[in-house]
Amino acid sequence: MDPPAKPEDDNGESMTGLTFRRATRADLEAIVDLLLDDPLGAAREDGSRPLNPRYIAGFEAVDRDPNQYLAVVEDGGRIIGSLQITFIPSVSRLGMWRGQIEAVRITRTRRGEGLGRQMFDWAIAECRQRGCELVQLTMDKTRTESFKFYEALGFRASHEGFKLSL
Amino acid sequence: MDPPAKPEDDNGESMTGLTFRRATRADLEAIVDLLLDDPLGAAREDGSRPLNPRYIAGFEAVDRDPNQYLAVVEDGGRIIGSLQITFIPSVSRLGMWRGQIEAVRITRTRRGEGLGRQMFDWAIAECRQRGCELVQLTMDKTRTESFKFYEALGFRASHEGFKLSL
Repeated sequence: MDPPAKPEDDNGESMTGLTFRRATRADLEAIVDLLLDDPLGAAREDGSRPLNPRYIAGFEAVDRDPNQYLAVVEDGGRIIGSLQITFIPSVSRLGMWRGQIEAVRITRTRRGEGLGRQMFDWAIAECRQRGCELVQLTMDKTRTESFKFYEALGFRASHEGFKLSL
Repeated sequence: MDPPAKPEDDNGESMTGLTFRRATRADLEAIVDLLLDDPLGAAREDGSRPLNPRYIAGFEAVDRDPNQYLAVVEDGGRIIGSLQITFIPSVSRLGMWRGQIEAVRITRTRRGEGLGRQMFDWAIAECRQRGCELVQLTMDKTRTESFKFYEALGFRASHEGFKLSL
């Protein structure tokens, strides 16, 4: 994950020409490539072509769920990043909606430029626009370099994230 | 949260006569009462009647989303617990589905009997039936007494859970 952006990056896409848009089926190979190019992803993704059919089924399930937003980030027509937002309704906390951010990836050659900050600024604004009052994510504890990044965005590490593989 | 159940509780609903079912609008007051009767919930829920309209809107959003399962637990026709499962599709990890468990509550008079264990056993089985390969949850770090409960269920505290209030 990138360190916090320099101040001139704070205004996000309007100053940089980045395009954030919903992913389409045609973006799927690029998204899988981004997922693969990651220390944890390398061990659990499949780079073979044609695409593993599981990716296609996964994409279709995301795409037909109106509470999922799988986004790609383009710069000059080239996909340089992706992330997924899940909008979660609930009864608890006065019927609060929350936005959950997952699978944030930036292409290797563009890391360290503050794009991570811009992607989170965009994603948080999307959550706000959808009426969310909380944004949440979990971070693998081995990604120690990301801890301060999230704190700089205003996140608090208030929770333990438990996972159970089935 | 309950401590791990005694061995005789391990077979869940079949041995105990508990009923797990999808919540209906008629259950909403009971669910709000359960949410309120919690150290953290007491500060952020609203027990007024008629129900705060935000709860009704929240329930309706959950109810119309096929990837949400708001469940109530009944014993002899009385609601004694509730929980919410969110089924999350993704492209990452080979298009893996994950189940996310949230807002697990047990009525005050029935705590300490192993019901928490049975509720998780049921919820995990639901996740498996829906094709999830991972179950996840976050736990407020102030709920220190729950840590061992989740570990005993097989969960690993592999992640930091970050939250940002909007």
